[in-house]
Amino acid sequence: MVHAEASTFVKGLVKREVYAQVLEQARALFEGQRNWVTSNLSNTASLLYHALHSLPSPSNATNWCGFYVVDPKNSKQLILGPFQGHVACQTIAFGKGVCGAAAATKATQLVMDVEAFPGHIACDSNSKSEIVVPIIQGDKVVAIIDIDCAELSGFDSQDQAGLENLARVLAEACDF
Amino acid sequence: MVHAEASTFVKGLVKREVYAQVLEQARALFEGQRNWVTSNLSNTASLLYHALHSLPSPSNATNWCGFYVVDPKNSKQLILGPFQGHVACQTIAFGKGVCGAAAATKATQLVMDVEAFPGHIACDSNSKSEIVVPIIQGDKVVAIIDIDCAELSGFDSQDQAGLENLARVLAEACDF
Repeated sequence: MVHAEASTFVKGLVKREVYAQVLEQARALFEGQRNWVTSNLSNTASLLYHALHSLPSPSNATNWCGFYVVDPKNSKQLILGPFQGHVACQTIAFGKGVCGAAAATKATQLVMDVEAFPGHIACDSNSKSEIVVPIIQGDKVVAIIDIDCAELSGFDSQDQAGLENLARVLAEACDF
Repeated sequence: MVHAEASTFVKGLVKREVYAQVLEQARALFEGQRNWVTSNLSNTASLLYHALHSLPSPSNATNWCGFYVVDPKNSKQLILGPFQGHVACQTIAFGKGVCGAAAATKATQLVMDVEAFPGHIACDSNSKSEIVVPIIQGDKVVAIIDIDCAELSGFDSQDQAGLENLARVLAEACDF
């Protein structure tokens, strides 16, 4: 049975170890659950949020962590999925802001200062930096992982590598 | 545009005022979003979690707040929806534990001590009390609101009234 402790991360691990635990727990959680994406994305948002909060600054200043999925009624629009944090924009057009850029370009956006990003959507003025990783099935973006940090330069290449691995696991494990 | 401050609650409000703000914000968030239930449930879980944390003890000891929806592939099973908190069980059979009891009986379950509840599912040993409110469309349960507290007797009749109002708004506003 899934237990809350799956999202408890021991303090003192380094980022690489934390992302390894996220991947391991995610794979275990997805077992037999490929048909209902919301269940997997809900638990993954929780896993990631608590993973980042187990790390030192700036990772523990993560203030939003979750998913947008491609709107089933509009293939050029993202719609809010499960997340941890304060309420968020419900829809984002492909190409708009950091999330829209990741969806339109199929490439991770690692943004050290969101104020400097052209067309940034200021959903929460506490967010200073952001990473957005597309989840790709075949050659189509089906969803994105979106994480905000209340500090500048909250994410680095290790986050990018860990999240791109997670995006691959999600693409394989879930029927979007 | 939806803004994170929709889930910021001024300290010092009483429970009745906080639930009124939740309802008002929920109605605003749902405007034009009835087709994709996850978007509305994700934001509502965030609204409720932050609402309860703006209140004094025991409300601010809320440690899990979210939704289970009826599994589209099994009408006698709940499946995890959006939430705030640590990872949680992905499926719950109707009749099993506090959530399953609410789904099976179509009645709110206000549980002062989860350890005393027959068949309680101990997803998180930190949870001491719980309230579960069914969301009913027509005569069918379509989802439940589930909130756990790390203190005994975390919820009262005011929570029940506020959450039952919210359940009615969700049933009206969303196509499950």
